[in-house]
Amino acid sequence: MQNTTLLVKHAAGEYPVYLGNNLLSKQKWLRSLVHGKQVFIVTDENVAPHYLSKMTDAFSELQCDTLILPAGEQHKTLATFEKIIDAAATHQHHRDTTFIALGGGVITDMVGFAAACYQRGVALIQIPTSLLAQVDAAVGGKTAVNHAMGKNFIGAFYPPSVVITSLETLATLPDREFRAGFAEIIKAALIQDAPFFDWLEKNSILLLARDEEALLFAIQRSCEIKRDIVIQDEKEKNKRAILNLGHTFAHAIEKTLGFGTWLHGEAVAYGIVAASVLSKQLGLLDDDHCHRIQTIFSQYGLLKKLPENISAIDLTTTMQNDKKVKSKRLRLILLSAIGTATIIEAISTDKITAAWGKKI
Amino acid sequence: MQNTTLLVKHAAGEYPVYLGNNLLSKQKWLRSLVHGKQVFIVTDENVAPHYLSKMTDAFSELQCDTLILPAGEQHKTLATFEKIIDAAATHQHHRDTTFIALGGGVITDMVGFAAACYQRGVALIQIPTSLLAQVDAAVGGKTAVNHAMGKNFIGAFYPPSVVITSLETLATLPDREFRAGFAEIIKAALIQDAPFFDWLEKNSILLLARDEEALLFAIQRSCEIKRDIVIQDEKEKNKRAILNLGHTFAHAIEKTLGFGTWLHGEAVAYGIVAASVLSKQLGLLDDDHCHRIQTIFSQYGLLKKLPENISAIDLTTTMQNDKKVKSKRLRLILLSAIGTATIIEAISTDKITAAWGKKI
Repeated sequence: MQNTTLLVKHAAGEYPVYLGNNLLSKQKWLRSLVHGKQVFIVTDENVAPHYLSKMTDAFSELQCDTLILPAGEQHKTLATFEKIIDAAATHQHHRDTTFIALGGGVITDMVGFAAACYQRGVALIQIPTSLLAQVDAAVGGKTAVNHAMGKNFIGAFYPPSVVITSLETLATLPDREFRAGFAEIIKAALIQDAPFFDWLEKNSILLLARDEEALLFAIQRSCEIKRDIVIQDEKEKNKRAILNLGHTFAHAIEKTLGFGTWLHGEAVAYGIVAASVLSKQLGLLDDDHCHRIQTIFSQYGLLKKLPENISAIDLTTTMQNDKKVKSKRLRLILLSAIGTATIIEAISTDKITAAWGKKI
Repeated sequence: MQNTTLLVKHAAGEYPVYLGNNLLSKQKWLRSLVHGKQVFIVTDENVAPHYLSKMTDAFSELQCDTLILPAGEQHKTLATFEKIIDAAATHQHHRDTTFIALGGGVITDMVGFAAACYQRGVALIQIPTSLLAQVDAAVGGKTAVNHAMGKNFIGAFYPPSVVITSLETLATLPDREFRAGFAEIIKAALIQDAPFFDWLEKNSILLLARDEEALLFAIQRSCEIKRDIVIQDEKEKNKRAILNLGHTFAHAIEKTLGFGTWLHGEAVAYGIVAASVLSKQLGLLDDDHCHRIQTIFSQYGLLKKLPENISAIDLTTTMQNDKKVKSKRLRLILLSAIGTATIIEAISTDKITAAWGKKI
């Protein structure tokens, strides 16, 4: 299997995403990616036992400090952000240090935000270790922490210096989290690439068995799709919004159930199904496509049910407060076909409420 | 007296700095600067009684929320930053809201940082009301809060949409704070513009009497000098560093005495004198220029003494931890003449300690 490099352009330059396997064992190469004399590696308690010592070995010639955070979306807060800043400051990391985020989306988002703000911005190497982070957080430069008022409410656009996506990190990923990663892969296919969707339908068994070649192709194609959209609209003024397919629904679920109850990918899968149902109800999407969308999430084990005591009306109300709402007009990403997303504003509250597929 | 507009270019576009008098009374014009339907005005308890109602009147057609913070550098913290975010979130401000920072440098830096991070960045109107903020914070897009480890330790480069500098706000500025503003004006002259330095020597009486025409010229010239430097190096990789003349000394003073004990301008004035003494000791600057620099700060009432119990060695040690230190090498901005700054690395600790002008 070949290693691949994807270049991602942004307003201030470009960065490479290195895709391959066993990349974390290439110590000399890892060392060559850091230009200063200090590195600060932040990871979480789940990831640390597997990969942290490999990393510290690679940087043994440098001042290498580490911070191990508790795992889970509920820790993606301004308080944890402050812990990261405090630790780097206590170890006297200077402006030319390099922050390394080693973990899933919570770590990459939060450490990315800390790197953006620490002394107004330091070098950042992202090493996403979950499938979801590899296809989502790796491209696009969004960083953030959550706030009681909503997910990713406080953050920055801050492109990393380098992204390293190494399949070895998926070996230790629990099955539930592995499956959740496919929500963003399927989303990428749905908004932009119908043939990729067909391929995902046909190869679910191979992919869920963690076949390396198939996985590498799925990750690479998802990243390419995201990159090509982000390049057109880095700060999400318009086109980039289609990447939010299912996300306004998903954020309402995550906020209502409490961050961390469902995995982000599980909530996104539910949200995409709801967006498809709404698209069908509005006459945008035909029955067959809507059915195939439900089916593929079932294939990947991503069709969860919301608890009985959650009402569709409350979920819809929560959606109105999402940060993607502009001047109080809810703007949703819907589908007019598999492979074609469309942005729709001013949909009636009733129609949205009906799309949740549960009692009002 | 004419109003003037200064255009400041940055990587992602440009913004206007409007310079004039009584600009806060031009309600229709103020209204025209906001494009969304929400504004969020953040100010402090000193400024609010004078100008806040003018501002809320101008935006009476919009959703206009306000937050009045306690005044002072000691409140420029991540905790206050969080208060700003919380208030905006509670009032359901969306991504197309406009934050308005109405106050001195503490407010413009902190609200600027909140605008940079709120939902990953919203529109920002800066209305600096102190002389120091008008000549310093208005140009360059630096935003930040302090941290126990150092001043402006957590922040972002985030250009505002518009800056409004209106002389009327200086009418209520206490004399001590007004004088402190001249530290940055004199600094601008020292690093880049010897004729402007001559002019400042000759016109101190007029300026300290708050003559409008003289003030407007001094503010405009300082902003132009800063703009022309920042344009060449937005993210402070190199050239921009000369704007830090006196600042590494100043930050050590502020941190040692406790943020807010001396005004930032007072600390900068002390720092510039120390940098001049060091420049002379290193044979870079001649006696006459060094003397004129001490004299001008005396003219503007900016020669303070450090308390007896503070040692020069401790101050120098504190300087080593400044965020401008790269890979533990202290880099200082020195002067080779009035109007000409130079960047020097690897100066011996002894020489720096001797420049503090007090017992070791």
